[in-house]
Amino acid sequence: MRNTVIFGGSAHPELAAEICAYLGMELSSTTIKRYSSDCLGVYLAANCRENDVFLVQPLVPPVQEHLMELLLMLDAARGASAARTTAVIPYYAYARSDKKDSPRVSIGGRLVADLLKTAGASRVLTMTLHTPQVHGFFSVPVDHLNALNVLATYFRNRDLENTVVVSPDLGNAKSASHFARLLNLPVAAGIKQRLSDDEVMIETIVGDVTGKNVILLDDEISNGGTMVAMLDLLREHRVRHASVVCTHGLFTGKAIERLRVRSEITDIVTTNTVPLSPEKRLPNLKVLSIAPLLAEAIQRIHNGASISSLGFVTE
Amino acid sequence: MRNTVIFGGSAHPELAAEICAYLGMELSSTTIKRYSSDCLGVYLAANCRENDVFLVQPLVPPVQEHLMELLLMLDAARGASAARTTAVIPYYAYARSDKKDSPRVSIGGRLVADLLKTAGASRVLTMTLHTPQVHGFFSVPVDHLNALNVLATYFRNRDLENTVVVSPDLGNAKSASHFARLLNLPVAAGIKQRLSDDEVMIETIVGDVTGKNVILLDDEISNGGTMVAMLDLLREHRVRHASVVCTHGLFTGKAIERLRVRSEITDIVTTNTVPLSPEKRLPNLKVLSIAPLLAEAIQRIHNGASISSLGFVTE
Amino acid sequence: MRNTVIFGGSAHPELAAEICAYLGMELSSTTIKRYSSDCLGVYLAANCRENDVFLVQPLVPPVQEHLMELLLMLDAARGASAARTTAVIPYYAYARSDKKDSPRVSIGGRLVADLLKTAGASRVLTMTLHTPQVHGFFSVPVDHLNALNVLATYFRNRDLENTVVVSPDLGNAKSASHFARLLNLPVAAGIKQRLSDDEVMIETIVGDVTGKNVILLDDEISNGGTMVAMLDLLREHRVRHASVVCTHGLFTGKAIERLRVRSEITDIVTTNTVPLSPEKRLPNLKVLSIAPLLAEAIQRIHNGASISSLGFVTE
Amino acid sequence: MRNTVIFGGSAHPELAAEICAYLGMELSSTTIKRYSSDCLGVYLAANCRENDVFLVQPLVPPVQEHLMELLLMLDAARGASAARTTAVIPYYAYARSDKKDSPRVSIGGRLVADLLKTAGASRVLTMTLHTPQVHGFFSVPVDHLNALNVLATYFRNRDLENTVVVSPDLGNAKSASHFARLLNLPVAAGIKQRLSDDEVMIETIVGDVTGKNVILLDDEISNGGTMVAMLDLLREHRVRHASVVCTHGLFTGKAIERLRVRSEITDIVTTNTVPLSPEKRLPNLKVLSIAPLLAEAIQRIHNGASISSLGFVTE
Amino acid sequence: MRNTVIFGGSAHPELAAEICAYLGMELSSTTIKRYSSDCLGVYLAANCRENDVFLVQPLVPPVQEHLMELLLMLDAARGASAARTTAVIPYYAYARSDKKDSPRVSIGGRLVADLLKTAGASRVLTMTLHTPQVHGFFSVPVDHLNALNVLATYFRNRDLENTVVVSPDLGNAKSASHFARLLNLPVAAGIKQRLSDDEVMIETIVGDVTGKNVILLDDEISNGGTMVAMLDLLREHRVRHASVVCTHGLFTGKAIERLRVRSEITDIVTTNTVPLSPEKRLPNLKVLSIAPLLAEAIQRIHNGASISSLGFVTE
Amino acid sequence: MRNTVIFGGSAHPELAAEICAYLGMELSSTTIKRYSSDCLGVYLAANCRENDVFLVQPLVPPVQEHLMELLLMLDAARGASAARTTAVIPYYAYARSDKKDSPRVSIGGRLVADLLKTAGASRVLTMTLHTPQVHGFFSVPVDHLNALNVLATYFRNRDLENTVVVSPDLGNAKSASHFARLLNLPVAAGIKQRLSDDEVMIETIVGDVTGKNVILLDDEISNGGTMVAMLDLLREHRVRHASVVCTHGLFTGKAIERLRVRSEITDIVTTNTVPLSPEKRLPNLKVLSIAPLLAEAIQRIHNGASISSLGFVTE
Repeated sequence: MRNTVIFGGSAHPELAAEICAYLGMELSSTTIKRYSSDCLGVYLAANCRENDVFLVQPLVPPVQEHLMELLLMLDAARGASAARTTAVIPYYAYARSDKKDSPRVSIGGRLVADLLKTAGASRVLTMTLHTPQVHGFFSVPVDHLNALNVLATYFRNRDLENTVVVSPDLGNAKSASHFARLLNLPVAAGIKQRLSDDEVMIETIVGDVTGKNVILLDDEISNGGTMVAMLDLLREHRVRHASVVCTHGLFTGKAIERLRVRSEITDIVTTNTVPLSPEKRLPNLKVLSIAPLLAEAIQRIHNGASISSLGFVTE
Repeated sequence: MRNTVIFGGSAHPELAAEICAYLGMELSSTTIKRYSSDCLGVYLAANCRENDVFLVQPLVPPVQEHLMELLLMLDAARGASAARTTAVIPYYAYARSDKKDSPRVSIGGRLVADLLKTAGASRVLTMTLHTPQVHGFFSVPVDHLNALNVLATYFRNRDLENTVVVSPDLGNAKSASHFARLLNLPVAAGIKQRLSDDEVMIETIVGDVTGKNVILLDDEISNGGTMVAMLDLLREHRVRHASVVCTHGLFTGKAIERLRVRSEITDIVTTNTVPLSPEKRLPNLKVLSIAPLLAEAIQRIHNGASISSLGFVTE
Repeated sequence: MRNTVIFGGSAHPELAAEICAYLGMELSSTTIKRYSSDCLGVYLAANCRENDVFLVQPLVPPVQEHLMELLLMLDAARGASAARTTAVIPYYAYARSDKKDSPRVSIGGRLVADLLKTAGASRVLTMTLHTPQVHGFFSVPVDHLNALNVLATYFRNRDLENTVVVSPDLGNAKSASHFARLLNLPVAAGIKQRLSDDEVMIETIVGDVTGKNVILLDDEISNGGTMVAMLDLLREHRVRHASVVCTHGLFTGKAIERLRVRSEITDIVTTNTVPLSPEKRLPNLKVLSIAPLLAEAIQRIHNGASISSLGFVTE
Repeated sequence: MRNTVIFGGSAHPELAAEICAYLGMELSSTTIKRYSSDCLGVYLAANCRENDVFLVQPLVPPVQEHLMELLLMLDAARGASAARTTAVIPYYAYARSDKKDSPRVSIGGRLVADLLKTAGASRVLTMTLHTPQVHGFFSVPVDHLNALNVLATYFRNRDLENTVVVSPDLGNAKSASHFARLLNLPVAAGIKQRLSDDEVMIETIVGDVTGKNVILLDDEISNGGTMVAMLDLLREHRVRHASVVCTHGLFTGKAIERLRVRSEITDIVTTNTVPLSPEKRLPNLKVLSIAPLLAEAIQRIHNGASISSLGFVTE
Repeated sequence: MRNTVIFGGSAHPELAAEICAYLGMELSSTTIKRYSSDCLGVYLAANCRENDVFLVQPLVPPVQEHLMELLLMLDAARGASAARTTAVIPYYAYARSDKKDSPRVSIGGRLVADLLKTAGASRVLTMTLHTPQVHGFFSVPVDHLNALNVLATYFRNRDLENTVVVSPDLGNAKSASHFARLLNLPVAAGIKQRLSDDEVMIETIVGDVTGKNVILLDDEISNGGTMVAMLDLLREHRVRHASVVCTHGLFTGKAIERLRVRSEITDIVTTNTVPLSPEKRLPNLKVLSIAPLLAEAIQRIHNGASISSLGFVTE
Repeated sequence: MRNTVIFGGSAHPELAAEICAYLGMELSSTTIKRYSSDCLGVYLAANCRENDVFLVQPLVPPVQEHLMELLLMLDAARGASAARTTAVIPYYAYARSDKKDSPRVSIGGRLVADLLKTAGASRVLTMTLHTPQVHGFFSVPVDHLNALNVLATYFRNRDLENTVVVSPDLGNAKSASHFARLLNLPVAAGIKQRLSDDEVMIETIVGDVTGKNVILLDDEISNGGTMVAMLDLLREHRVRHASVVCTHGLFTGKAIERLRVRSEITDIVTTNTVPLSPEKRLPNLKVLSIAPLLAEAIQRIHNGASISSLGFVTE
């Protein structure tokens, strides 16, 4: 494998460009055509032959469009004799469809993993999958990073007295306690019940939060329903100041409206695994870049160096 | 395999219902959910276990959405222990992406065929693929029907004196001559050059059309550019009356506007492989149903009877 | 597929026999040979050709021996032209190896799923997998039953006043709340931290247990460390009477010794997914049979009837 | 991959040797044995381990013998731990079997592509496939070259006044127009109807040929029926001088007899993708070598350099 | 699977017809076309859809032609939606290429097994493989019959006093002793050394043959070299009368000439797994039909009845 | 592929260490965990990424444990992005399960070969397979060495007058004659009949052994039954001194007891493909190391040098 070649799909060209900037190399350009039949066609405008190809494409809305684009890019790279093709998917949306919770439903997380392999992915580089078991859905090697260190640096030089890290859900409690340990803080967690895709109820909170400042941490924020329900409950415990933190800031639906009006939110911290349109950039919203992390991982993958020693591997 | 069970995706529920009506059975319902992350989830609301499952979903715009839906439906049917799952795809949009016409481009027609298999398709029932070679892209059995007989019946009792069947393109000339033979008419063809996805030029016409009435036949009409270019050239040959005929009536972009204003078009004839919204239904547009044909094919597939004897097999 | 033929491996012949008794059919015999090289050889002593073959083998200790036996049985059934071969694995031991929690470790749950397919499994029938995501590790259809209804019947006619269902771990809390709902009881859960394979610590308990009677429910009891740690903590909450309940009663290592000496345990309730040697049968231990449930599932799988309507499908 | 190693099968040893000569390397020898049972056995007489192996074998008559030889060579290279094995197939005979033109027929082009992969082909290097869609039949990467530039050089310094390039068939018209553009000539095409494998009829000619000199271009000449029919029709248009040109000069059956007697043929130009026995070498037949082109392609494949920039890639 | 449909390739149409006659059904016809490029094309002239298809084709010379024909027939049956396709290969020529007896040689027996699967074989029915290990090369189920009972019936009512069964080779000694047991005779064996494909040397004979009548049994006779070498050695032991017996009577090269001149040969007994041309039918040559055996096996395969109880299974 | 990394499983750590010593490199450590459920877990404690990984694990008793360990190691290496993973299996126990010698039995040799591939083996390095056909069971490249040269060196400087090499079985006669040629000795062989796994009968001996010294050579000694039966028969031929030689010295069951009491055994010679516990080390037992041979093979595999030129390749 001679050279590293990086292409970006249309899902997040800024991130692809930023990764390339860190690596001191040029982003190779991709042409995505939409035919009048609404089909997509992909042309990779740089030589792939015997090269180590990386395709950067988070699966953000419109998810189906971006997924098909990525599949066509993988197919084009394979046809163009890439020595190896790594799908760099900072946000793997279908990770949440990870179990058969009723008869005759699809398990999208496994299906999409199989589709990526069928289209030609030799390996996958991703971040903060919704459950660690999703890793096992892939039959190609996966490097699974997390952004907890990146997110923690934001809080490092702050006054964190009387502060507690809170996970809105027991499912995310392990990450929250890992994050709390990085900041030397105590941890608490809500017990969530999902009423529908759009509505959740937080039944109770485990751990002491009364009168504290909280850092509310989740893997992703989509429509914000969970965060708002959590904040409601925290209010009852006289929580006055909350930092809202997540790796994947989707902010779909009414998320921004919901968060804008909560006066107790001092700041919202997220990363750029998902592109954020300008109108969503609230004054108190801070986006941290995971481009240096992905750039370093890409370099190590190319060189065969250990990724786990990078200290960001999700275990 | 006990029973035939038919589900329809969201691409064309009317066609699925009509097929079921012809078979005297109920259409089983499908629930398609869109999560706040924009991912889709599918639930098949009828027992599939050891049954012969058919999933009706033409790949019409938005193509990526409908494709992913179909893949999830296939996955759900497989997970639900269907004895056999047939993807009924009356319009296979990616058939046009059938060759590598530049280095490092994707071959979508092959890729989508592989994805369908990966998701669990045991077989495919489709109509009028853009080139017959696309058949070879599938590694599962394919039944490939055509609508020429259906389209020909429309013209059977008409006065066809001084009429010639014209294909706008040499690629479609074989179908046109087959169609002409059904109606006992002569045939002619244009020589087309594609300038871009949206613009074509018809260089010349092979065969005698001067002063004739024409039946202009193509496999599909998407933005109508080809048909309009052909009509322009036919005008120069003093053609006054034209019937515009196709199997797949997509009518995307400005197709309807373009066709509406052409006074020489006496009628537009298409089939319901593709759903047609009411605002596209011009007064002189006639939609013929291929539901009886697909219903008969489904019954024969279930019974193991010969499809080729149906007389609609595209060869 | 003509007939149902059921074979049992050496892991749990009593269960296989009991299933056959419920179905009013004979258990077909299997000959397992151990060669002087310590290799195993399998001979299925009944005609498999075009039959619907079921192989009953929970993966209980010695796990590697029983797994290899099952793989050889699958291979023999395939070579003998079985129309379909279902691996009936009431206890899937490797389900706990479900994530890559450190670099360069194996994911045994996924690997064993792949091995079963390679050896010829057409489908799998299993019970109470450690996490529902393990379902997605299989590329063959899986029927995933649970024993909660069976376990609940044991408590149905008891006086359950002042009783609470307690899960020792947040991971199992969803099942516990399902179980509690069946008995119309409240639910509580411990927050567990695993110090090593053999040692756990329960940090705290969510929900009110003080002075109550508890039904302590987990998916499996292996060395009993979790249960004992939970009972220690419950004692501090003045819990006097506890029923210890699990689906998979492995009782390995010192489990029996540990449980025997706890005076607060009124009864231990488990199922026969795992065989139980006589010396482990404490006077207050009750084994409920899941043979009728598996027999019914096998019959429905053979007939293509819905398994989900059985009401025992783990979702 | 350390070194390039090239083996030739028995189909065309001269071409393999010529390619090696251009690369300044030795042709590694292959031993093909025919057992008394008529089975073939292959022995590759040079070290393949971790090397970049190329196997040169056009699928020329006897096609089945040469195909099986190639499959056995691929198997031997895989078993000998070649790092990569490329099948160099300058003439892919089964490309013409590319569609299911009647029920229950084989699609040989797809089948042979699958067989090559099963036998161990990592990639394929081929020339001038009958239709570009055949590319999509392969699931391994394919480099698809054409010989148009090579053929055009032959005519470069000639007096081409009053000359037109003619394709005997619409299917080949795109290549003909590409070739015509290279020589700055106009183009015309026949409309062919295949009566049987051995007999064709040219119905008419599109474009002006009357009284012109023609360069008659097709992808291959097998029994010469098409060329002769075309020449007959051209005579009616008072064409006096014709150059007959093709990439694949099979000249089977009566081809040579048919062409020998046509006084209007000034010269026959072909390439050495197919070996030509001495008795077929008519005085006016010129064979151009594509060995330099294949040698260059092999070198670029080994080095991971772009093949498309070679300017001979068929698109 | 509705009906049994049997097709024969061109290798041995008489056998296919005879099998059908025994089953009281019609042989479905196959059209094999040879194109002018020397490629083959196959058309199966009967409905395969959901039927149980059997393709009868021994791999006799020209082996490569017959193999490719069979592969195309398998492909056509799969494409035509056969429910199951069984390759009936009474003589599997490549069985002798079963080991890697030098570096970088092909293992044809394994390769051809893989090709058959790739082309669509669901199962294989064969007879008397050269070594039983070849069975393990197939990943589809194989029914492996022998002809020993059929061959033994020929000798049943003869005077077999002073007779011994002799295997020319230790490799075949197990079959010879099985055959001897059927006739209640003693057994002996030669120790063979292969000098080349065409020449063998029998070093010595194990067991007492001096002055006896012998039945010389081998799995196949190709060029007859082994038999002749054995007869030479037997002569030295004063053997006067020998019956020469084999399952597969290929009689290639000088086999017939060699056997014709040996006065000690009283009779040559073989079966019709391989077609025998009239000029090879020596007066003392007797061909026994294995058509009833194959017919019975086909019927049992279709009905799912046990083949092993047929008593002809090679173990 | 950057570096060679060698891990050993628990089957034979001494051999792995010795191989590394010869290569002047460190043995990377493997952690094998046994969970309380009796499942195994593997952790490879060195970076595998893009490295050339070798896993040393003979399949010695307990075979199932060691096989599962190896499969988990392969899975871990694949998940850890090894460039290539070679399973080094000096003793492949399941090689003896190489044919279907009765209906409905497993073919373990093929199954285990498939399992190794499923778990991620890119290639296999093994020694002295029971039959050469087992090579064909693998679909990954296999390097198959023998120890005959190693074993022969032991006898090189001895007085071998009046000595004959004897194979107890015709199946092993080819190796024995190869070995005899190395020492310039004559060869003889027994004709063995296996009565059960534990009991064999030697019917007779081919070749002259009366009053000679013998070197009794077999591929493996498990319970020693064959050797003892052979020695009994040799006694009848007045053989007074015997060297007992094998590649794989398993010495299971009563093997050691049986061999200890035979006074005619002057020495027992074996290799360390299988670990030998101290209590089995009889005073006259000599273990030769094949570590240098495996070390050399590993180095050549890594460098892409020819293994066959090593002179130890089993053909």
